[in-house]
Amino acid sequence: MSDLSALQAEVEVITDIDVLESVSRDQAALALHGRPLAAVRATSVADVQAVMRWATAHTTSVVVRGAGTGLAGGANAIDGCIVLDVSRMNSILEINQYERYAVVEPGVLNADLDRAAAQHGLWYPPDPSSWEISSIGGNIATNAGGLCCVKYGVTSDYVLGLDVVLADGSLIHTGRRTAKGVTGLDLTHLFVGSEGTLGVVVGATLRLRSRRSAGSALVVGSFPTVAQAGAAAMVISGGVRGPSMLEIMDRTTVRAVEAHLRMGLDTEAGALLLARDDSAHAESAALADLWQVVCKEGGATEVFATSQSDEVEAMFAARRAAYPALEKAGHALLEDLCVPLGRLPEMLERIDAIAAEHSVMIGTFGHAGDGNLHPTIVTPHGDEPARERARAAFEDIMHAALAMGGVLSGEHGIGTLKHEFVQYEIDASTMQAQERIKRALDPLCILNPGRKGLHS
Amino acid sequence: MSDLSALQAEVEVITDIDVLESVSRDQAALALHGRPLAAVRATSVADVQAVMRWATAHTTSVVVRGAGTGLAGGANAIDGCIVLDVSRMNSILEINQYERYAVVEPGVLNADLDRAAAQHGLWYPPDPSSWEISSIGGNIATNAGGLCCVKYGVTSDYVLGLDVVLADGSLIHTGRRTAKGVTGLDLTHLFVGSEGTLGVVVGATLRLRSRRSAGSALVVGSFPTVAQAGAAAMVISGGVRGPSMLEIMDRTTVRAVEAHLRMGLDTEAGALLLARDDSAHAESAALADLWQVVCKEGGATEVFATSQSDEVEAMFAARRAAYPALEKAGHALLEDLCVPLGRLPEMLERIDAIAAEHSVMIGTFGHAGDGNLHPTIVTPHGDEPARERARAAFEDIMHAALAMGGVLSGEHGIGTLKHEFVQYEIDASTMQAQERIKRALDPLCILNPGRKGLHS
Repeated sequence: MSDLSALQAEVEVITDIDVLESVSRDQAALALHGRPLAAVRATSVADVQAVMRWATAHTTSVVVRGAGTGLAGGANAIDGCIVLDVSRMNSILEINQYERYAVVEPGVLNADLDRAAAQHGLWYPPDPSSWEISSIGGNIATNAGGLCCVKYGVTSDYVLGLDVVLADGSLIHTGRRTAKGVTGLDLTHLFVGSEGTLGVVVGATLRLRSRRSAGSALVVGSFPTVAQAGAAAMVISGGVRGPSMLEIMDRTTVRAVEAHLRMGLDTEAGALLLARDDSAHAESAALADLWQVVCKEGGATEVFATSQSDEVEAMFAARRAAYPALEKAGHALLEDLCVPLGRLPEMLERIDAIAAEHSVMIGTFGHAGDGNLHPTIVTPHGDEPARERARAAFEDIMHAALAMGGVLSGEHGIGTLKHEFVQYEIDASTMQAQERIKRALDPLCILNPGRKGLHS
Repeated sequence: MSDLSALQAEVEVITDIDVLESVSRDQAALALHGRPLAAVRATSVADVQAVMRWATAHTTSVVVRGAGTGLAGGANAIDGCIVLDVSRMNSILEINQYERYAVVEPGVLNADLDRAAAQHGLWYPPDPSSWEISSIGGNIATNAGGLCCVKYGVTSDYVLGLDVVLADGSLIHTGRRTAKGVTGLDLTHLFVGSEGTLGVVVGATLRLRSRRSAGSALVVGSFPTVAQAGAAAMVISGGVRGPSMLEIMDRTTVRAVEAHLRMGLDTEAGALLLARDDSAHAESAALADLWQVVCKEGGATEVFATSQSDEVEAMFAARRAAYPALEKAGHALLEDLCVPLGRLPEMLERIDAIAAEHSVMIGTFGHAGDGNLHPTIVTPHGDEPARERARAAFEDIMHAALAMGGVLSGEHGIGTLKHEFVQYEIDASTMQAQERIKRALDPLCILNPGRKGLHS
């Protein structure tokens, strides 16, 4: 442990085993984690630089973590690593109302940023379901999505620039604060979604939008089957005016949510489809009428429409409760595939078939308008054979998505959970190019090694 | 020349001096160009791979060119290089109406893609003024902008994935065709805007949008001074509903365009501001009313509003004619700065002051809503002292933009034209990270070396 003395001279170093255990994993079931050598709770850029300089000098792995809400094990500790916790770097440094950007530290929670923006009439759109508890640094590391992405885009669409500490402790500044700018190579988007493998994000300049007006309309269709709901989602998404949210919940999910929230959801439907519009009022009403027709013609047994904001919010609260509700029912293994929209009904059917094949319960919900689904495999706690079957179902779902031209992860990341499957999506030459970039920025491979499909 | 024999065995190699001269430069005034060893007009990915393998084996520089409409000298030949012309790789391979993407070769012209998309009710938004003559590969290389960026974003916002031949001839595939996807490192956006320094784009998957409905409203304000027009642009841009285009032309530009097109423009105004909305009709009218008030309160001496599409199109044709019109007046040196919106009036005034200081004529036009201006310094043909003064004015404008928190280039790129100025925008540590990435992908530094601020 004497190695740590040089680090202890610069920052407070945590070696207490219980505390280390508390920062050794994120929220991904199934993903393994190791035992860290130590942890540091950084409160400044200088702290982060000190850790990285020490780690480079001692060729020690560093795993960065924010709020710890990750779903792919990307922040899980590695044996002998330093856990670098940046959650205390949580200041909003600037909100520029006129130029519409915010400058934040990585530990700022997504919801806190949005609330601060609201005070200036502005809005930070990316809204992962975890928005109340996940931090901007983690959102950037995973390129987090959310419910409004279908209309407003994902995290990467809102990152204008980053401050990043590299493996050797040097600090770089990427991007710009102007509306446009092409001066250097686009390093900003290289770091977005890189899951802690290329550098430590210590600051971000984020684009904000004008806050939306109050107008909101919601159509909820109850369908006999998931495939019918998926087909209706295809039609609604394919319209000239798309929805601002388009979400699906299958029967298993609806029942779990109803057991959790008791709000009178239709637990007999095969699936619910939620289509929301946020445009001006007259237009919303016309769109809602159209979507009701689409649902009915698509086989919906019941269609409900509302523009009352409390009812709209309650339905999306139900949708956001999907994962926590399923988690209450047992050990939950969460998927995050994304398929082309045209394959959505087929993928939904395939998931049901995989559940039957492996005798596991799968609750599927997700961002239907993006083809981004979160089938969640739930097994009884302590039932090891069931967990084995869950694992097999999990792999089958990934391969099914890839076979349909889909991807392994839409918004949660690869982390450790899907590390070994990246080779099935990305060919060897392209992976080699990724490895070269990894080594260029982190030649000792100390930043989150062995994650995201990167083997170097 | 015997070195070329191995290449000649695989592709047709051009060594005719006149032909070489015709592919040795783009449209950037001032940027120097060298004498190539040879040129190859690739018609396939295999051709490009053959060139790159040969170039690697012989450590020979390769300069890639598309339509040759670049404005920063990024496609200018280097002494002894191979010019790799991909303009004949110009097939639209697929337009997927439902998933809303196009798969194209790099030589496809922007306007040709948009026309093909239109046949499917779709739209490719990025619209550089050169859209009728510039190619998608070049648009990607420079991350081209355009007039509708202020509402719809730039080229990088529409690139889903790329096929790229690396320096060693290997072919990689970045990105995805699904709405979302975070599986690998984001190499796609690293290549966008990299100006031929990292690889050769041989294919692109581009996101398309639903074609807009016909609704369109235009407000044209005539202002006594550029600063007043800039201030009105700030207010219009800052509204909850922004314009779909917001363009400015100063008096010098208006006069050049009027001399060119004879359409009755107000040649006495200090500047014209053009604000366009493309939303549904009722909303457009209300917005146009608001913008008229903003212009009048901002000092406009005349305000004209129309929703007749021929009048709207004529005004934007005038705006798009700005650079060709100024070019007719003499030797034109085109700038491409971008400043924070709040500094727009000050920047416009500064440009006028710089013109006076150096006794040169500067016509300024550009994308006011993005703070992206194209001051164009015009000097009489053959007047060398004037060209020297133009050069000095050019540098002063860059430094003025940087001093206001702006950037060297909003959408044209750095190329050779601004190569030596990148150091004033990007700090040494960040440049070093860029150089490391360059060397990771192009260890022999044969791809467009000595451009974009990259010295390795």
